[in-house]
Amino acid sequence: MTTFRTKLKVRFGDIDQAGIVYYPRILHYFHVAMEEFFSHELGIDYPTVVLQHHIGLPTVHLETDFRNPLRYGDVFEVEVRVLSIGQTSIKFGYTAYFENQDKVALEGHNVTVCVEIQTARKLKIPNWLREKLEAYQQRSGMDSSTAAP
Amino acid sequence: MTTFRTKLKVRFGDIDQAGIVYYPRILHYFHVAMEEFFSHELGIDYPTVVLQHHIGLPTVHLETDFRNPLRYGDVFEVEVRVLSIGQTSIKFGYTAYFENQDKVALEGHNVTVCVEIQTARKLKIPNWLREKLEAYQQRSGMDSSTAAP
Amino acid sequence: MTTFRTKLKVRFGDIDQAGIVYYPRILHYFHVAMEEFFSHELGIDYPTVVLQHHIGLPTVHLETDFRNPLRYGDVFEVEVRVLSIGQTSIKFGYTAYFENQDKVALEGHNVTVCVEIQTARKLKIPNWLREKLEAYQQRSGMDSSTAAP
Amino acid sequence: MTTFRTKLKVRFGDIDQAGIVYYPRILHYFHVAMEEFFSHELGIDYPTVVLQHHIGLPTVHLETDFRNPLRYGDVFEVEVRVLSIGQTSIKFGYTAYFENQDKVALEGHNVTVCVEIQTARKLKIPNWLREKLEAYQQRSGMDSSTAAP
Repeated sequence: MTTFRTKLKVRFGDIDQAGIVYYPRILHYFHVAMEEFFSHELGIDYPTVVLQHHIGLPTVHLETDFRNPLRYGDVFEVEVRVLSIGQTSIKFGYTAYFENQDKVALEGHNVTVCVEIQTARKLKIPNWLREKLEAYQQRSGMDSSTAAP
Repeated sequence: MTTFRTKLKVRFGDIDQAGIVYYPRILHYFHVAMEEFFSHELGIDYPTVVLQHHIGLPTVHLETDFRNPLRYGDVFEVEVRVLSIGQTSIKFGYTAYFENQDKVALEGHNVTVCVEIQTARKLKIPNWLREKLEAYQQRSGMDSSTAAP
Repeated sequence: MTTFRTKLKVRFGDIDQAGIVYYPRILHYFHVAMEEFFSHELGIDYPTVVLQHHIGLPTVHLETDFRNPLRYGDVFEVEVRVLSIGQTSIKFGYTAYFENQDKVALEGHNVTVCVEIQTARKLKIPNWLREKLEAYQQRSGMDSSTAAP
Repeated sequence: MTTFRTKLKVRFGDIDQAGIVYYPRILHYFHVAMEEFFSHELGIDYPTVVLQHHIGLPTVHLETDFRNPLRYGDVFEVEVRVLSIGQTSIKFGYTAYFENQDKVALEGHNVTVCVEIQTARKLKIPNWLREKLEAYQQRSGMDSSTAAP
């Protein structure tokens, strides 16, 4: 059972006046983790999905819990899961762990909708993408019988 | 009944490769709206809260629905509500409307926790802030009897 | 003699680990000021330039002096000047003043090149735009005889 | 002769309405490259410099030439050089190359000033830092006799 994780660093400019990562930039971390997930786990770069397949996955719903603040110098790993796959939507789960710790910095999920990128028209998830996502669900022990609703 | 709204513009650099506002930057809009809400509705600048009262309101939970994409050139108004006030937490609601329309771009809420900004130690919301927030709840028809749980 | 100025505020998330505005975000302020300059001084929204005239003005050269750090709570005014107009290029000057003070936070200029936005192909500046820019140069006392080279 | 380079990727949210990297975010790339330069070439993490040595290096002057636009999917390498070292200032040079090409995306330099981070008071560059920087200048063939003025 393998769950994809990517390592990221808090950058100097990610910090806000309170001395912790500005929360909108935390959602940027989720997006970066998703981009890495496509390259390293699904075997297709997200730029290829967007620029050659003309498919986008805009977020329509987002929930995040900020468990422990990230500070400058923190290194963390974002785990990416595929929680469920609908006709046109994909629900991704993200958990950020402080490096070499079980301590969670944040966890969340977003629901994305598959669209044709020029027109923003909703699309049935193409089979090639569905197959990659389902194969990852199986590898990561997140298949349809165990997935959160 | 008055609900605070602030007008914002989508900026050139807010757009992403899909030609819509990059979703992490949408959460920045919420924060900017909260800053304006403090100045214009509560009568105290958020910088004063942070720098002179040494109080911060980091977000611990966030939910957002992205109803209709914002694009370059869009002007929109963010409505800020105070959904509930706990001992140490404040739940803010945000709805972004396209200018001069009832059409919603996005809506969401976040739960923030009142902390002493240097130590990040949780604080009971000071009375002066609680009173301002409650007075706004009454002005905006969002008092304790009607507030969402 | 009128020089365009727009008022901006340092936002909570603009700050970096050193407690001052992260310098890349200062360049964002210049871009926002340019967008406001188009709307309020040239009489055409920059989104209209981009989306309807299909013209872009990417920056090819940038110089900035950071005179005094901007901090959270600072309000400042960015003055926009049109330093020179070539066949295909426009050189804009920016000076940011602390509000109600002569004190300069930063000053800089950038050279932008007029391009067809889809192809990024260089374009002769269209007459309608050149005329607007030249009229502003005259209004602001920055005509061709006084402009910096 | 070794010059430090770090590999970066253009991210989905780095793009602007013109379909190229928003130029303020290019300066963020320079900062990230400087952070990596400290860790990998100088042998001290920049967070350690800031948080334990209480030293900051705010930028006081910046010049950048944007030679070729970066687009989504581009991978590039930023070369970091130490152009000169004064009593209190360090001038860094940056060149970004498209991956596996000699083609330059952008080049620039910034002058930073060494400050005590709490007070923003100018500091003589501490010897331990000067020695690391000078050693790198020698390794990279950028010693005082060849450095640009």
